[in-house]
Amino acid sequence: MADEAPFQFLHSEVIEYIYKSADSGEENGRNITKLENMGLRVGQGLIERLTKDTARFKDELDIMKFICKDFWTCVFKKQIDNLRTNHQGIYVLQDNKFRLLSHLSAGKQYLEHAPKYLAFTCGLVRGALSNLGVKSIVTAEVSVMPACKFQVMIQKS
Amino acid sequence: MADEAPFQFLHSEVIEYIYKSADSGEENGRNITKLENMGLRVGQGLIERLTKDTARFKDELDIMKFICKDFWTCVFKKQIDNLRTNHQGIYVLQDNKFRLLSHLSAGKQYLEHAPKYLAFTCGLVRGALSNLGVKSIVTAEVSVMPACKFQVMIQKS
Repeated sequence: MADEAPFQFLHSEVIEYIYKSADSGEENGRNITKLENMGLRVGQGLIERLTKDTARFKDELDIMKFICKDFWTCVFKKQIDNLRTNHQGIYVLQDNKFRLLSHLSAGKQYLEHAPKYLAFTCGLVRGALSNLGVKSIVTAEVSVMPACKFQVMIQKS
Repeated sequence: MADEAPFQFLHSEVIEYIYKSADSGEENGRNITKLENMGLRVGQGLIERLTKDTARFKDELDIMKFICKDFWTCVFKKQIDNLRTNHQGIYVLQDNKFRLLSHLSAGKQYLEHAPKYLAFTCGLVRGALSNLGVKSIVTAEVSVMPACKFQVMIQKS
């Protein structure tokens, strides 16, 4: 029922805190980066704990499936609703009811606030992938709240 | 298994962030206050959600039992191990394996770091109680990690 609530409320407070404590001259971009970095470290810690006893992953797609199922369920108590890929290193993860947006009204006027509620999770995914040896760039996009798409671009080295 | 992990990791990052971003001249006390305030607001939000469908509480003790059972389980996935009271407004909640300390080594040299891992939870309890109409002062004390005692002093008005 309220299983993910402590995490959700804490996440909201963190955003509030970071935006409040920023100098008024500071641009939004820096706060987004702070949230992203925080997510990165949480993702790294979490994936380490989650994969402690799992079998080795076969390939990149296998890793992405783990992120969509086990990892997402651990954090958001639901799976990603849709995973698509172009088989060339781009993955799109769609969550039709993203928990960290579900407390925002669906009105269009709130769309501009969406990025600050997504930054942490972009970092979360990037951190999890990086600890599994996959370098990536993760961005997010909202068209109709609370649905949300995360785009993962794998960086080949 | 790792149900409370997202919350735990985020909690650690918040402490890290607050301590890092503080001016070096700033004393520890201010950071503790920030963490306590953050906990306060999370506690207020959480208790509101948790008590949405519960029956009215009989008395103060009834409220404290709810904090020890339902509220604690929601946040820490376990109940308080022991609740004691002097029946004059002081309650001692003992958690023998407090989750937010369990990643610290039990060595005595780490005891001095304990307060920063407890401040958020003191606020959490105070916030929950305040939304149930109970004004309180909450302090915490650790003797042997990861066991921990929270003392709640009810403020009669």
